[in-house]
Amino acid sequence: MRTLKSITSIWVLPVVAALSFSMVGCQSQQQLGSNADAASKVYVAPGEYDEFYGFMSGGYSGQLSIYGIPSGRHIFTIPVFSQAPTNGYGYSEETKAMLETSHGFIPWGDAHHPELSQTDGVPDGRYIFINENNTPRVAKIDLKSFQTTEIIEIPNSAGNHASPFVTQNTEYISAGTRFSVPVDGEGDVAINSYAENFDGTLSFIKMQEDGSMKLDFQILVPGFDYDLSHSGKGPSHGWAFFTSYNSEEAHTLLEINASKNDKDFIAAVNWQKAAEYAAQGEGELVDAEYYRNYVDKNDHIAKSERNSQVRILNPAELEGMIYYLPTPKSPHGVDVSPDGKLIAAGGKLSTVIPVHSFDKMLQAIENEDFEGEIDGIPVLNYDSIIAGEVENPGLGPLHTEFDGNGYAYTTAFISSEIVKWSLETFEVVDRIETYYSPGHLMIPGGDSRKPWGKYLVSLNKITKDRYLPTGPELFHSAQLIDISGDKMQLLLDFPTEGEPHYAQAMPSDIVMKDQVKFYRLEENNNPYAAKSEKAAKVERDGNEVHVYMTSIRSHFTPDNIEGIKVGDKVYFHVTNLEQDWDVPHGFTILGGNTAEILVMPGETRTYVWEPKKAGMFPFYCTDFCSALHQEMQGYVRVSPEGSDVEIAYGTGQ
Amino acid sequence: MRTLKSITSIWVLPVVAALSFSMVGCQSQQQLGSNADAASKVYVAPGEYDEFYGFMSGGYSGQLSIYGIPSGRHIFTIPVFSQAPTNGYGYSEETKAMLETSHGFIPWGDAHHPELSQTDGVPDGRYIFINENNTPRVAKIDLKSFQTTEIIEIPNSAGNHASPFVTQNTEYISAGTRFSVPVDGEGDVAINSYAENFDGTLSFIKMQEDGSMKLDFQILVPGFDYDLSHSGKGPSHGWAFFTSYNSEEAHTLLEINASKNDKDFIAAVNWQKAAEYAAQGEGELVDAEYYRNYVDKNDHIAKSERNSQVRILNPAELEGMIYYLPTPKSPHGVDVSPDGKLIAAGGKLSTVIPVHSFDKMLQAIENEDFEGEIDGIPVLNYDSIIAGEVENPGLGPLHTEFDGNGYAYTTAFISSEIVKWSLETFEVVDRIETYYSPGHLMIPGGDSRKPWGKYLVSLNKITKDRYLPTGPELFHSAQLIDISGDKMQLLLDFPTEGEPHYAQAMPSDIVMKDQVKFYRLEENNNPYAAKSEKAAKVERDGNEVHVYMTSIRSHFTPDNIEGIKVGDKVYFHVTNLEQDWDVPHGFTILGGNTAEILVMPGETRTYVWEPKKAGMFPFYCTDFCSALHQEMQGYVRVSPEGSDVEIAYGTGQ
Repeated sequence: MRTLKSITSIWVLPVVAALSFSMVGCQSQQQLGSNADAASKVYVAPGEYDEFYGFMSGGYSGQLSIYGIPSGRHIFTIPVFSQAPTNGYGYSEETKAMLETSHGFIPWGDAHHPELSQTDGVPDGRYIFINENNTPRVAKIDLKSFQTTEIIEIPNSAGNHASPFVTQNTEYISAGTRFSVPVDGEGDVAINSYAENFDGTLSFIKMQEDGSMKLDFQILVPGFDYDLSHSGKGPSHGWAFFTSYNSEEAHTLLEINASKNDKDFIAAVNWQKAAEYAAQGEGELVDAEYYRNYVDKNDHIAKSERNSQVRILNPAELEGMIYYLPTPKSPHGVDVSPDGKLIAAGGKLSTVIPVHSFDKMLQAIENEDFEGEIDGIPVLNYDSIIAGEVENPGLGPLHTEFDGNGYAYTTAFISSEIVKWSLETFEVVDRIETYYSPGHLMIPGGDSRKPWGKYLVSLNKITKDRYLPTGPELFHSAQLIDISGDKMQLLLDFPTEGEPHYAQAMPSDIVMKDQVKFYRLEENNNPYAAKSEKAAKVERDGNEVHVYMTSIRSHFTPDNIEGIKVGDKVYFHVTNLEQDWDVPHGFTILGGNTAEILVMPGETRTYVWEPKKAGMFPFYCTDFCSALHQEMQGYVRVSPEGSDVEIAYGTGQ
Repeated sequence: MRTLKSITSIWVLPVVAALSFSMVGCQSQQQLGSNADAASKVYVAPGEYDEFYGFMSGGYSGQLSIYGIPSGRHIFTIPVFSQAPTNGYGYSEETKAMLETSHGFIPWGDAHHPELSQTDGVPDGRYIFINENNTPRVAKIDLKSFQTTEIIEIPNSAGNHASPFVTQNTEYISAGTRFSVPVDGEGDVAINSYAENFDGTLSFIKMQEDGSMKLDFQILVPGFDYDLSHSGKGPSHGWAFFTSYNSEEAHTLLEINASKNDKDFIAAVNWQKAAEYAAQGEGELVDAEYYRNYVDKNDHIAKSERNSQVRILNPAELEGMIYYLPTPKSPHGVDVSPDGKLIAAGGKLSTVIPVHSFDKMLQAIENEDFEGEIDGIPVLNYDSIIAGEVENPGLGPLHTEFDGNGYAYTTAFISSEIVKWSLETFEVVDRIETYYSPGHLMIPGGDSRKPWGKYLVSLNKITKDRYLPTGPELFHSAQLIDISGDKMQLLLDFPTEGEPHYAQAMPSDIVMKDQVKFYRLEENNNPYAAKSEKAAKVERDGNEVHVYMTSIRSHFTPDNIEGIKVGDKVYFHVTNLEQDWDVPHGFTILGGNTAEILVMPGETRTYVWEPKKAGMFPFYCTDFCSALHQEMQGYVRVSPEGSDVEIAYGTGQ
C-alpha cells in the first residue's frame, strides 16, 4: 500500500473555501482556443436544434432545468419538488397531491441528482429520476411529456443524497441516508447518543412492470453519512456502490469532527442478493409512514397513496449482501467505469483518486481477505482491492465521469480544475482550469456504458464575476468543454438556475421522437371536464360551486357568471378544447389566492377561489394565445352572503 | 383623411390565431446571414460580459428574468409577484409581506411590462418597475441589489395592463384599467349593466423624494379596456398616452363584440395638469383599500401598509386633463418617438399604423377641433391630428420601438414579422420574418429619448418547433436581430421563461458599477440577528421557540438543539456571518413545510417550523459553500408534547 500523504488540518478549517477563490488565476488563452472556433462550436442557428438535451438539477430550486447542449440555452424548467406559480403545479387541485408527504404538504424540495433510465446500461430516454435531499423522496419524470408523474417518499432516512442511481436495466433506483437518524423508533433520544442510536439505510426502489415505483427493501447500515452512489454494469451488474464519510460518527461540528479518519468507506452492495432475501421474506417488515404520489394515467389527476410498512434487511443477520471498501478520505463521488471494472472515488480530503478493482474486490470477498467487520459488514483490505491511485489529481477531487475512449475526468473543487486521466495508467494526461470550484461534472452518458464523449460540462459552485452581476444573489455557472481532442478546450460559460448538483445529457433524437404535443380531448377522463362548449355549466352544491368551463381561441364558456356569494368555494374546472401544439390557455381571477393554472390542450385543470367580498371580478386568459387574446376575458359577479341572486351564466348573450 | 381599408369580419373570428401559424414559411437564408458571422456576433467568450442587461418580463411566472444580450444567456430571475421556492421569497418571515393585498396573501401574479426608471427621458439604471395584471399592482426593483423592494396595489381597477410606464424623470408611474369594473361601490350589479355601471381608471403613482411610491390620483374614464401606455418626452413631457379598445363597452364574447368599431381611442392625459388639480385638493377622496408593501431599509424586513383612501379626478368636472384621439382599430401598443413628437399606435385589427402628431394634437386642442365628447372627454378630429399612416405594416401590428436613427420597428402578430419604417416618410423600408407571432419587441432604450439602436429582440408568442421539444408545455421564444445596418439580420433564437410580454435593456456598465455584493453585518438591524457565534442562542417563550442561529463556512451555531416539543412553533433566525460575495448559506430542516431560506452574506432570514411528531430532525446548508459544505449540518431533537426535556444547544460540544 502506498503511503497516503497526510492532510494537514488546514484543509478541515473554514479557510478551505477561501482558498478556492485565491488559487485560481486568469484563464490562459491557449485553454480557451480561438474565439471564432469556440463561437462556431456552440452556435445553434435559428431553426436548428441542439445536439443534446442537458438535464440540470435545479438544486435548491427543487426543479429540473433543461438546457440545450452545446448552446447553453435554458429551454425549459420541469416542476418536480417545489410549487411552480408559473403553471400552478403544487397549487392546482389536480397537482397538489404530488407534494404530499408523511410530514404533510411540502411546498419546496432540494433536488440533487438527475439520472436517466437505462436499458443494458445505456440511457434509453424513457424517464429521468431525481432525488429530494431534505425530506427524502425520489421523483420520476416522463420524458414523453416532460412532466413529473410519480414521487415516492423514503422513510427511515434523512438527507437523501446518495440517490437516485439506477441499475443497468433500471430494475432498481437506489438511495442512501446522508444524515443518519434513529431508525424504527420515535427518535426522541439525546443527540449525543448518536453512536448507539443513529443508523443509516440504503434503500432500493423497484421499478415495477407498469412503470410505477415501489420501495422494495432497505438495508440497515452504521450511522455514517452515505454520500453518493452508482450501480455496477457489465461484469459488475448486480452491485451498487455508496460512498460514506463521517465514519467517526460525529454529531456536531462535522467539518472538523467528521474529517479525522484517514479512510472512510465505500459500501459495495450486492443488490441482487439483497433482492433475493427480500423476495424470500427475509428481514423484518417494520412500521413506517411514507407517501407515493402519482399522476393517474386515466384522468391526469395526481393521487396520494399512504404506505405503512417497509422491509428492512440487517447485514448482521443476512450475509453476502454488503461489504465495506476502505477509501481515503471523506469520499464524495463514486463512479464506475464504462466497462464496469473500475470504481473511482473522489475523496474531498484525499490527495489521490483511489480506483478500486471490481475483480479484485470479488477475489478478496472470496478469499475472506477482511481487515475487520463493522456491525456485520466485512471490511475488505485496501491493498487487496485497489487497482491504482491517481496522483496529483488537484485539491479536493469530487466527481468523475468517463468519455468511453479510455479516459476519466475528475473535478477538483479546491484547486478549481478538471483533470483527465487514463484508465489504463492512472496517470493525469491533461488538466484545465474552471471558474470556480466545480462540484459535479457531466459528459452525455458519462456514467453509463456508452458515453457520448464529445462535450464535458463543469458544474461550478462559485459564480462571482463570470456574468453580469445581479446583486448578492447569483445563478450558478456551467462551463462547456470540448473533449473530442487530446487537449480539453473551454468553449462557453453559461449560467444555470438554482444549483446544478449534477446533470445528465443524451442525444436529442432519442428523446424528441416520442414527444407528446397535446393531449387528446377524447381521452380526457377528468370527472369535471367539459369537452365541448355545450357541456359548459355552473352548478351549485351547497356553498360549493363548480364551474365547468371551456377555453378556446379566444373566449371562455361561460364568460359571464352571476349568483356567486361570499362564503362560497368556487371550483373553476377549465378544459382547454384546443387540439394543437403550443396553444395552452391560462386562467386566473382578480384577487385569487391560488396561483394561475396553465391548461395544456386537451387537459382540465382546477382553480379554487373563495371570494371574500362582494364585487365584480374579471378573469382572463394568461397565456397570449391569438391576436384577440386580450379579449379572452370574463366576469364573475359576487353577491353578499345570503343574497338571492340566482346562478346564471353564458357567453355572448 | 385616407380611406381606411375595411377589416373583414374574418379577422375577428378565432381563425385569426390559426392563420398566424400558416402564414409563416421557411426562413430565407439571406435574412439569416452567414452562420459564422452571426455566431461571432452573439458569442460572449468565457470571462467576458454581455454588452446589455436584458430585463424580460416573466409574464405568467410573475417574475422578472435577466438575460444577457447578445448571448441570450439566462443570467438570473428576480422574484417579484410570485412565491419563489428557490430562495424563500414569499415564504420566509422577512419577505411574506411583499405579497399581501386587500384580497389577502396572493402567491402568484401576472407580470407584464418592465420599465426602467428614467432621468431626462433616458434609462438611468436606478430602478426597474413592473406591473401585475391580475390583482392590480406595481413593483419597484432596486437595480443595486436586484431585489424587489416595493409593491403598491391599485384599487378601483382590474386587469392592470396599461402599466407601469414612467414619465421623463420618473416623476410618475402610470397605470390603467384593462377590465373595467364598477368603481367606488360594492360592485354587486348585473354584468349586463356594464354600460351604466362599469368604469375605468387611469392611475398615477408618484415617486416620492425618499424613493417610495404613493398613489397620487386616479382619473375616472369610460368603461373601455385601457391596454397600453407611454409617456411623452421632450416637447410632449407632461403628457401620457393610453390606448383603449372595447369602446363598444361589450361585456361578453369580446373577440367579436369588442371588435366592431372602426376606431377606438388613445387617451391623451395632461398629467401635469391633473397633478396640479390633485395638489389643489380637487376631485374626491374616496374609500378604497389597497396595500403598499416595502422592504424596510433599516432591517431588510418587508412590511405592509394598508391605505384606505384615494383621490379620484373626474374629467366631467375638471377640464383640460384628458382628450381622446380616435385611433383604428382596437389599438394595442402606443409608442412615442425619441423626439417626443410622434405617437404611433399598433392596432390589432388595423391595416395601417396610425401616427399622431403631438404638435397637431396641441393645435387641435387649442382650436377645440373636436368631433364630440364622451363623459366630459373631448374627442379630437382624427384628420386634424394624424401625422401619417404607415401602409402595409403587416397583419396585426402591435408594438413599436425606435432605434434613435430615424426609424421605427413594429411587430406584426398575425403575419409574424417585424417591419422597419421611416419616421419621416412613414414608408416601410425593411421587413423580416419572425418565428412565430411576435407580441412586444425591444430595442435597448427603445422607448426612451436615447435608444441604443444596435439590437432588436422580438418577443414571440408561439414557440412550437424552435427548440428541442419539452412536451405540451414550452418556454416562449425571443429572437435577436441586428439592426445596425440597413437590413435587419436575424442572429439568434433564445428561449425565455414564462411569457415575456415586454422587455427592456440597457448598457451593462451603467448597471454594473453600483452593484451590492454583500450586506454589511454591522448594518444588519434585524431584531433577531445573531451577529456573532457568541450571540447565538435558543430561547423559549411559551410554545414559541426562537433560534438565533449563525452560519459561516462550514457550520451552524448552534448545530445541536434539544428541548423542542411537538406543538411548538420554532423560528429559525439564520444570520449569515460571511462578508464576501457569492457565499450565501441556505437552511432547511427535514419535513419542513416552508420553502428553504437562502441567506445572503450579512443578512438574517427566518424559517418557521411546527414539528408534528417527535423524532430527530436534521437540518443543513442547501447552497454548496465550501469543500466541507456536506458537513454543514445539525440536528434538532423533538420530544412529545408535555416532555420535560429542557432547551439545550451548542456546536462542537
